[in-house]
Amino acid sequence: MIRVTVWNEFRHEKMEPRVAAVYPEGIHGAIAAGLKEHGFAVRTATLDEPEHGLSEEVLGETDVLTWWGHIAHHEVRDEVVERVWRRVVRDGMGLIVLHSGHFSKIFTRLMGTTCTLRWREAAERERVWTVAPGHPIAEGVPAYFEIPHTEMYGEPFGIPQPDELVFISWYQGGEVFRSGCCFRRGRGRIFYFSPGHESFPIYRQPEVIRIIANAVRWANPTPVTPGKLDWDNVPPLEPLPGWHHS
Amino acid sequence: MIRVTVWNEFRHEKMEPRVAAVYPEGIHGAIAAGLKEHGFAVRTATLDEPEHGLSEEVLGETDVLTWWGHIAHHEVRDEVVERVWRRVVRDGMGLIVLHSGHFSKIFTRLMGTTCTLRWREAAERERVWTVAPGHPIAEGVPAYFEIPHTEMYGEPFGIPQPDELVFISWYQGGEVFRSGCCFRRGRGRIFYFSPGHESFPIYRQPEVIRIIANAVRWANPTPVTPGKLDWDNVPPLEPLPGWHHS
Amino acid sequence: MIRVTVWNEFRHEKMEPRVAAVYPEGIHGAIAAGLKEHGFAVRTATLDEPEHGLSEEVLGETDVLTWWGHIAHHEVRDEVVERVWRRVVRDGMGLIVLHSGHFSKIFTRLMGTTCTLRWREAAERERVWTVAPGHPIAEGVPAYFEIPHTEMYGEPFGIPQPDELVFISWYQGGEVFRSGCCFRRGRGRIFYFSPGHESFPIYRQPEVIRIIANAVRWANPTPVTPGKLDWDNVPPLEPLPGWHHS
Amino acid sequence: MIRVTVWNEFRHEKMEPRVAAVYPEGIHGAIAAGLKEHGFAVRTATLDEPEHGLSEEVLGETDVLTWWGHIAHHEVRDEVVERVWRRVVRDGMGLIVLHSGHFSKIFTRLMGTTCTLRWREAAERERVWTVAPGHPIAEGVPAYFEIPHTEMYGEPFGIPQPDELVFISWYQGGEVFRSGCCFRRGRGRIFYFSPGHESFPIYRQPEVIRIIANAVRWANPTPVTPGKLDWDNVPPLEPLPGWHHS
Repeated sequence: MIRVTVWNEFRHEKMEPRVAAVYPEGIHGAIAAGLKEHGFAVRTATLDEPEHGLSEEVLGETDVLTWWGHIAHHEVRDEVVERVWRRVVRDGMGLIVLHSGHFSKIFTRLMGTTCTLRWREAAERERVWTVAPGHPIAEGVPAYFEIPHTEMYGEPFGIPQPDELVFISWYQGGEVFRSGCCFRRGRGRIFYFSPGHESFPIYRQPEVIRIIANAVRWANPTPVTPGKLDWDNVPPLEPLPGWHHS
Repeated sequence: MIRVTVWNEFRHEKMEPRVAAVYPEGIHGAIAAGLKEHGFAVRTATLDEPEHGLSEEVLGETDVLTWWGHIAHHEVRDEVVERVWRRVVRDGMGLIVLHSGHFSKIFTRLMGTTCTLRWREAAERERVWTVAPGHPIAEGVPAYFEIPHTEMYGEPFGIPQPDELVFISWYQGGEVFRSGCCFRRGRGRIFYFSPGHESFPIYRQPEVIRIIANAVRWANPTPVTPGKLDWDNVPPLEPLPGWHHS
Repeated sequence: MIRVTVWNEFRHEKMEPRVAAVYPEGIHGAIAAGLKEHGFAVRTATLDEPEHGLSEEVLGETDVLTWWGHIAHHEVRDEVVERVWRRVVRDGMGLIVLHSGHFSKIFTRLMGTTCTLRWREAAERERVWTVAPGHPIAEGVPAYFEIPHTEMYGEPFGIPQPDELVFISWYQGGEVFRSGCCFRRGRGRIFYFSPGHESFPIYRQPEVIRIIANAVRWANPTPVTPGKLDWDNVPPLEPLPGWHHS
Repeated sequence: MIRVTVWNEFRHEKMEPRVAAVYPEGIHGAIAAGLKEHGFAVRTATLDEPEHGLSEEVLGETDVLTWWGHIAHHEVRDEVVERVWRRVVRDGMGLIVLHSGHFSKIFTRLMGTTCTLRWREAAERERVWTVAPGHPIAEGVPAYFEIPHTEMYGEPFGIPQPDELVFISWYQGGEVFRSGCCFRRGRGRIFYFSPGHESFPIYRQPEVIRIIANAVRWANPTPVTPGKLDWDNVPPLEPLPGWHHS
């Protein structure tokens, strides 16, 4: 059974009644509930817990981590970011970055770019199009589906070209966005998925939860084979005349 | 249970005693035996069977097809090639192309390029390096493994850049080769793997069979969602003033 | 000076007065005039000329070929398609495929996939977004530009993932499309650009011509170095004990 | 004329007579001399200059920066790294990272991964193979060339999959390496090229200088179009009922 940790900043819900009205259980609660129905072993963690709920022990028991943050990216401590980064690139932990997580320390650290985008909060319609029909993350997802009220995230999106582009979004106000992007970094697989604002019940849409669940399965780590990612001074495998260890 | 059809040209084994000595059961027999141990439902098909053993019915019951051919590529009938192509790009059937299959009609059809390479038959040593350590096709495969006697296949390999490059081979005689290459085409996933000559018992090496088995699991099709790959005249999804079906 | 050959099917303009009214000089005439202003040596060729105007001699003097076809793809003779294909993958000739050229023999031959898409002719608005801001093909192109009346081409587009995705289009009717796609195939560079219907004066928009001109410069071939793409039986470069030419 | 700044750590040459014997003018001196012959406007900069020789003014006049460092990566100040990073991703400055620069702060910052590799200093033979024959960086480079004595850099190389893989190296001792890798990050283009140790006169080989010169031309920035990479709250481009700026 895949072990998922759902991480949430969990500030909007405590500070803004209109957000608490949408997600009384917290955004993490909504995502965790959705993922449980897909058969994963799910736990949650939030910013204000000790070590942000992401101790070595918790991460050591996590196959795939989902990440939602927005107004407190800067409060995430660098050593925790480094810990998550190591788990992804060295151990292969999967990472699903959601919506405003595009500006999180862990995502920008992994991408190496600005991760900038255009945005607008106008409760407009979004239509998510599948551009990679046979991709595992698109399994059971129709050719397109609609999100009635969304925050707009528009191109250009300051990311490296995704290794696989799965979804592109259309917005009523006139923009487009690469809304579902796969990246492989070191041993780990990373999926960025843009739908999911704090003000709209997007994480209650079955298509959205299904995509996150598909991404969890896709990002589930391949067991690590020792000795594959070391920085190492190695002896020759073929005879080299005159060679001796220095 | 994933259903695999192992296809083989099956001519060398019947014409050349030295090949028959290496693969008395046929190359397909050796590959099929190896894959069965990995828990797949395996059948075989060969060139000289009616429809090359690849009727609509057989392909309809095949999740992943492996392909070995060499001296009789031109004898494979175009309508069978087209049938396989349709199954891959439209239905998502996985395709594992082995060794000299680089010049098969189905592979060159899917790649759109020359698929040329340099070669030498000198029974030299090959060392296969994993360059994508966390990739599912590299699961359980060490940092490198050796093939004691191999046919050399060297760069430049006339393929499009692979969507994922998993293995690169080193040759004793001085060349390199992108020996494990992933491609996504339409709904289907394709893996090319170069080790495996008719004169050497390479398909009896556990690492080689494991890689093919991993590739089978990786290429196993995502169930098809209707309506995703049609060429279709469609009405607007948003109101368009003055629009009417012509 | 880069030598461009602008190829056009040139049937709509002769058969349909409404098309002739938009492009009295032919679509090729409009594109050629636009490209001349960007400083290229431009000639044109059309379907009904001998050898479709694409003799070995003409192709031998062509650095970059642009292709527009629609209703007569099947009339393009296979040997001419093969000739163009060889020039692209073996000699590195650039190829710019425009609009309905997505279903041309040469494009589907190079892609290896269905090249299907959804479409609608409703004279709606298209907005072309630059998603790769530093790409040479986006030079001088704003963050977005609009095409007032267009034919809609929608996802999923049945192509391999582009090596570089430069533009994504938004449509008033609710769809999106990967409208500017780069592919490298053999020695050649290929750019697909979707804007440009026969019924709308899209090839008179400066942004559209500028993009095609940028693509010509990007696809201009690297001079060929001999011996790089041969299928060849080669002697070893390192000493191999016991090796001798067979 | 493309303006190149050749950066060098310049420590080995001052500390080790055997290195000074190979590069009396400094590694930067050798690279700069080679690039001047290719017609660029070249200046140099080194670690121990104020601001490491990379002031805002110098970078503002640099189209492409080449980077060589090894034993003092940690002495490069973070604000200079950030300055270079901004120039690359936001302004499109080209960056050529050489040899042991794989562990520099700027390269690991841009890659987001470990950038680890295996290595051995045994003065063995390296053979660099062109795997992308039509690529601009391979212009004039033969199918392969040899470096008589090299430091071995072996796979797995802990980088994201390159956007374009141009060269793969073979080593006498039995390893392979993706020795020429292209990356696009933000507006900038980055080329990593592994040949070039401090102990061997590799930067005096014409093929090596030619490849760096080709890379300079390839990485030369596309002029920036304003407004393309901002993080911006934007009004709708299409009418949105009920929308007003908040």
